[in-house]
Amino acid sequence: MRTAFTDLMGIEHPLVGFNRSPAVVAEVTNAGGLGVLAATAYTPEQLDAQLTWIEEQTDGRPHGVDLLVPEKVAIGDAGDLVASLRAQIPDVHLEFVERLMAKYEIPAIPAEATPLVNDEIAAALNPEGAQALIDVALGHPIALIANALGTPPASLVDNAHERGVIVAALVGRAKHARRQVEAGVDVLIAQGTEAGGHTGTIATTVLTPEVISVAQGRPVLTAGGVASGQQMAAGLALGAAGVWCGSVWLNSIEDITPDAIKRKFLSARSSDTLRSPLRTGKPARQLRSAYHDEWEADGLPALPMPLQPMLVNEAFGRIDAAAAEGHAGALALETFFIGQVVGAFARLRPTKEIVESMVSDCDERLRELAAQLR
Amino acid sequence: MRTAFTDLMGIEHPLVGFNRSPAVVAEVTNAGGLGVLAATAYTPEQLDAQLTWIEEQTDGRPHGVDLLVPEKVAIGDAGDLVASLRAQIPDVHLEFVERLMAKYEIPAIPAEATPLVNDEIAAALNPEGAQALIDVALGHPIALIANALGTPPASLVDNAHERGVIVAALVGRAKHARRQVEAGVDVLIAQGTEAGGHTGTIATTVLTPEVISVAQGRPVLTAGGVASGQQMAAGLALGAAGVWCGSVWLNSIEDITPDAIKRKFLSARSSDTLRSPLRTGKPARQLRSAYHDEWEADGLPALPMPLQPMLVNEAFGRIDAAAAEGHAGALALETFFIGQVVGAFARLRPTKEIVESMVSDCDERLRELAAQLR
Repeated sequence: MRTAFTDLMGIEHPLVGFNRSPAVVAEVTNAGGLGVLAATAYTPEQLDAQLTWIEEQTDGRPHGVDLLVPEKVAIGDAGDLVASLRAQIPDVHLEFVERLMAKYEIPAIPAEATPLVNDEIAAALNPEGAQALIDVALGHPIALIANALGTPPASLVDNAHERGVIVAALVGRAKHARRQVEAGVDVLIAQGTEAGGHTGTIATTVLTPEVISVAQGRPVLTAGGVASGQQMAAGLALGAAGVWCGSVWLNSIEDITPDAIKRKFLSARSSDTLRSPLRTGKPARQLRSAYHDEWEADGLPALPMPLQPMLVNEAFGRIDAAAAEGHAGALALETFFIGQVVGAFARLRPTKEIVESMVSDCDERLRELAAQLR
Repeated sequence: MRTAFTDLMGIEHPLVGFNRSPAVVAEVTNAGGLGVLAATAYTPEQLDAQLTWIEEQTDGRPHGVDLLVPEKVAIGDAGDLVASLRAQIPDVHLEFVERLMAKYEIPAIPAEATPLVNDEIAAALNPEGAQALIDVALGHPIALIANALGTPPASLVDNAHERGVIVAALVGRAKHARRQVEAGVDVLIAQGTEAGGHTGTIATTVLTPEVISVAQGRPVLTAGGVASGQQMAAGLALGAAGVWCGSVWLNSIEDITPDAIKRKFLSARSSDTLRSPLRTGKPARQLRSAYHDEWEADGLPALPMPLQPMLVNEAFGRIDAAAAEGHAGALALETFFIGQVVGAFARLRPTKEIVESMVSDCDERLRELAAQLR
């Protein structure tokens, strides 16, 4: 399938695979799609290493990087960013998390484990922190850089364009798309409410043509509700020049999400997700768990970024560790970002097989429909 | 476009037009689609007259009827159904409506006006009331009878099948689709969360393949987010044998919805709808208005069917009458069922033109995509 997006990127299939696992990114790219690495999961040093590894695997084939630069964040003290942000988390929030950990009997983990790195990553959710990741990304031969929240800083657009890097942005409303066009973005990604992660309330079927109508000829990708070839064909039928898939890779063998979460996904239905600010402070679709039930029952408001992720990161570090050991309370609380397509997950599959079956099923469905035309 | 559904119904285009306006139903059928009349808007006598009129316009072409038989309702006294149900509405609810009418200065209307008929219609939202409508519908030469809430009574399926009438059902979850298959329904309609009216939380892109997977070969239509040829093509790409459209006709000249509401729709964005039990007691997507803001601020729970529609029907009768005169308070409160596609409404169009442009745009998009295949 040839589209304006495949021509722009020099790729074979109009399919983007967005994921934090370097192996998923490399496999999508090697299968003829465009793999895009979620940089926000990493420190600048880690991102540098991951991109180097992906380059070694993909032999010059195009791949990209996705950032998250929120427009409004809590401001910390540059001197000791993590500590100064931590100090802004209200006691009632910390007490809620402690009560929850006690109620579900989640063991503590050593202070030197991942939560500290997670805190550092969360604290970097600000324009300056994002700049460090942008600098690393643009130092590598990437083909595309995407921003998942808000309009990118002008310097990002300029620096990317100087290096011949395509700039993309995820949007959940037509008015956000208009702002991205003004900011000089090259590719818009219309992310429907059914998508995993940060997402709005408008469904893919309605949002995609709305974004196309304000894109002034730029390629628009559709995101949300795309995990099969038929859903890919539907995205293209809506007028999209390609599909941006995130959730489907959490059903891949290569994805680095803890096994306990991947197993929960395999038994989940499409109605088991919700949009909640629980993990990041902004509404993001994720698997509903006992954590959400307890949080909603308590009624505490979510904190702004990055305080909310800092609040819950240590807890989820403990939950991940206990869930890996089969701890019942941890398994009840465990959750991660996922779209409504989770209901279709049946067994873990190789990333390459997911790409190949999506592409061939998409082509087949479009051929069938063409044959049904009178 | 030929599909299993066009073959089953003997129609030219895989497009159903669901509406309470007899002229919309006749126009959709005459344009080669399948017009389906919302019977729940009428008393049995009115439905009889409307179906007779549609038959006169459509010259034997297939059309259908849609009912709403909720599975759980408040039970009234058969002797004086309206009065006995009215008596079950709590005073706090009646007082809220009175305060609202006073705050927005909505004039009262004469007791002999439409609200009494509306009360009768609402009171008939029970298996017995539905049976009277079913009897009228099956006494006419209809091609399809659909049920919008819950599984149809066995007698409906049997009586319809004896007369060669296809039975369809709207579903918002795969498990509801399974129950409909067990009840003997012939056609399933997967209604996504973006749809107007009673709808669930799963988006069309995700719900449609889920319903197909449990339909055991029955044709599945997709509903929600379909108001253009590209969206129709997307529904077919998802595997649907046709599309069921409701909201788009509220953008037609023939639709009988009050002009004040149709004008509000023309200026609405896709983000201006919400799922709310305000009008019927069950979550239904509608245009957000000051009525929802006041209702949510007050925090009163919704009443079960048919008490909630009886509670609000008189108020909306008053609002409709005042809004028709340009009353500012009434225009602020005014609302009606509509899907997220409302954001695409630009000007009122003839129903025939809507059908024809959807069908030709759908065909064109599918031809374009087939040409892009490598």
